[in-house]
Amino acid sequence: MQIGLIGLGKMGGGMVRRLQEAGHRVFGVDLGADARRAAEEHGATTFEDVGSMIAALPAPRVVWIMLPAGRITREAIAGLAGQLTEGDLVVDGGNSDFRDAPGHAQTLGAAGVGFADVGVSGGQWGWQAGYGMMVGASDEHFELLEPALQALAAPDGYSLVGGVGAGHLVKAIHNGVQYGVLQAYAEGFALLSAHEEVDRLAAMSAWQGGSSIRGWLLGQMVTALRESPDLDGALTAVADSGMGRWTAEEAIRLAVPTPVLAAALHARFASRSDGAANKLLTASRAQIGGQKS
Amino acid sequence: MQIGLIGLGKMGGGMVRRLQEAGHRVFGVDLGADARRAAEEHGATTFEDVGSMIAALPAPRVVWIMLPAGRITREAIAGLAGQLTEGDLVVDGGNSDFRDAPGHAQTLGAAGVGFADVGVSGGQWGWQAGYGMMVGASDEHFELLEPALQALAAPDGYSLVGGVGAGHLVKAIHNGVQYGVLQAYAEGFALLSAHEEVDRLAAMSAWQGGSSIRGWLLGQMVTALRESPDLDGALTAVADSGMGRWTAEEAIRLAVPTPVLAAALHARFASRSDGAANKLLTASRAQIGGQKS
Repeated sequence: MQIGLIGLGKMGGGMVRRLQEAGHRVFGVDLGADARRAAEEHGATTFEDVGSMIAALPAPRVVWIMLPAGRITREAIAGLAGQLTEGDLVVDGGNSDFRDAPGHAQTLGAAGVGFADVGVSGGQWGWQAGYGMMVGASDEHFELLEPALQALAAPDGYSLVGGVGAGHLVKAIHNGVQYGVLQAYAEGFALLSAHEEVDRLAAMSAWQGGSSIRGWLLGQMVTALRESPDLDGALTAVADSGMGRWTAEEAIRLAVPTPVLAAALHARFASRSDGAANKLLTASRAQIGGQKS
Repeated sequence: MQIGLIGLGKMGGGMVRRLQEAGHRVFGVDLGADARRAAEEHGATTFEDVGSMIAALPAPRVVWIMLPAGRITREAIAGLAGQLTEGDLVVDGGNSDFRDAPGHAQTLGAAGVGFADVGVSGGQWGWQAGYGMMVGASDEHFELLEPALQALAAPDGYSLVGGVGAGHLVKAIHNGVQYGVLQAYAEGFALLSAHEEVDRLAAMSAWQGGSSIRGWLLGQMVTALRESPDLDGALTAVADSGMGRWTAEEAIRLAVPTPVLAAALHARFASRSDGAANKLLTASRAQIGGQKS
């Protein structure tokens, strides 16, 4: 199929490669000359602006947005609503807030343009192994997209998970789960590290080699430890990308108990805290008499 | 190598198979005629009692215990201390409390017999893919065991993680981590389930297909959901095997913060609770005036 792709960065660039290698034709857009050149090398036709891409892409058009989530993606969708026509389809493949999807569907729908949201996992390595793709779309739009999804996804790596919005919702929950899984491994590592007599790299290697907790994330951790056994230069303050917060907000909205996902998120907050609560506890212990509290 | 194996059940039986297929010779012991017959079919020589096996196994003997943890294993080790001789080696491959290892090493050491502890992961499927094996032993005993470990373990699936006791410690932490990882996935499933418009099996399949949170445990969950999409007959009260508690006790002893591992363990306790705390909260809300609390 022919497909417009806005954003040829780390993720979009890898997707160009998989699409072109599968025989699809990508009409790519990026402001950066390097990103365009790399996409051209994989056989894509590229453009500096969206209007030129739309003019070149035959109707009915499928335009896939692979841009940073938030304002940039929202503005791109608003722009497309004024440029695309009846029967075209916009796909948001970024890490967008799932609560934005209904608004996008409405804006585009007013111009007769369809909307689908795809949560994409696999990061910068996905171009090799294929991505995990969680699709929120009508059955009709899913069928339209399926040739591209087959090219992009890992084996068994894509599913229609529900209607519009479901793709990004499932991706947000996925990222919330990822915080929990990573934190579980990290706490295990801290326990290993508290035992000087234990070879923590050997232990985590054995876990990843053949144990039940083996998985892609643990593999990444073992690789990081092999490269730097003392994790030189790694910060103790852990950032969060925002999607874990969306998952936590959704759990609170629906009153779904998620103690592990919440603890993992708050562990990251604690890692960056200025220690106000701890200072008060220390001061109170002194006040009360340390032995008693 | 020639190796004595006490316990030919689910785990021990699978190990017989991998050892014999790799050209080793197993001298197996089990009270059950069916377990002995299955081991014989894979080429092992079997015995009904430990004494006969020890008489048949050439010295220096390596005797691997694969029995239920606790009293049964402790009694087996005490028995071996009286039957084995200088230069022999006992390996405990069960899910034993790592705090038992120094005592076993001392008991056996008094008779000149060595002790090594191996944490084995992989469950009943390990005989196909190979096990994950975390070895606590002296360098000398590790070398002695290595041919057997190579036969039993998955590729890159065994490591010497430290001296005596380290194998079972690393296995306990492994299981504590497993509680956290499982709970993270399960909470994600609960969030998916709170959204009627989401196809939760399709979502978890996409996660396992190509996303960053893919792993062996998630694969088992997807299989369970495929077999029974509504998880018919599964209990809401979740058991725990005890190793998660050992990990929690060790975290408390060493004051290592493990909020996710603790939350996962307490979520299992909560699933089996009689609700005493909840009843008091409900009664208190009525007392205080429900709106305010």
